[in-house]
Amino acid sequence: MDKVNIMEKLSLFDEHWSPKVVGELNGQYVKLVKLSGGFVWHHHDDEDELFLVLEGTLRMEFRDETVTVEAGEFIVVERGVEHRPVVEDGEVHVMLFEPASTVNTGNVRNERTAGEEWV
Amino acid sequence: MDKVNIMEKLSLFDEHWSPKVVGELNGQYVKLVKLSGGFVWHHHDDEDELFLVLEGTLRMEFRDETVTVEAGEFIVVERGVEHRPVVEDGEVHVMLFEPASTVNTGNVRNERTAGEEWV
Repeated sequence: MDKVNIMEKLSLFDEHWSPKVVGELNGQYVKLVKLSGGFVWHHHDDEDELFLVLEGTLRMEFRDETVTVEAGEFIVVERGVEHRPVVEDGEVHVMLFEPASTVNTGNVRNERTAGEEWV
Repeated sequence: MDKVNIMEKLSLFDEHWSPKVVGELNGQYVKLVKLSGGFVWHHHDDEDELFLVLEGTLRMEFRDETVTVEAGEFIVVERGVEHRPVVEDGEVHVMLFEPASTVNTGNVRNERTAGEEWV
């Protein structure tokens, strides 16, 4: 029964917007991701998505509001809801909790669509 | 779309071994719990359980080994595996990810079995 050290896992990659799987349970993945700048507007048809901010400030844009999520806070983006994560300053570290089927760009497929990768 | 501040939620209760639900997604609950002392040996027939330590040191006992989980680390206890969380010194704060159906004492029902409570 292995434990996972979050800082250690974060030290293993530098790319932005490319979530790394660090755990699996009940058909859900725990992922770590580093964010900087703005992402693409998208939604997930069948998956709710949790963003737990570990470091920095994440701005989660919705079509009708923007929620600022600081370190030590999380937000759940429900399935079907269009959203766009944005980091205005520096880099943000986030832990994601979502179904194993979740693709980072949701309904959109482009050069930022990431494959499944464990660290 | 509301965010959740973990420290704020932790300030709302003092009991030990009584997990509070702070979020829900994909049939899973996010819970916060404060631990002190030793718990009961138990397992969950159908649920894997993630323990993310936010503060303090958690000793997770299994029948054949013990894993020490520090702040910033998590451990996934797979379904069917007997375990016993123990806190030797002071208090530990933990975030749990687990199916909404999960009962804290698993296959055991006793005075430490907690009902579902949101904060």
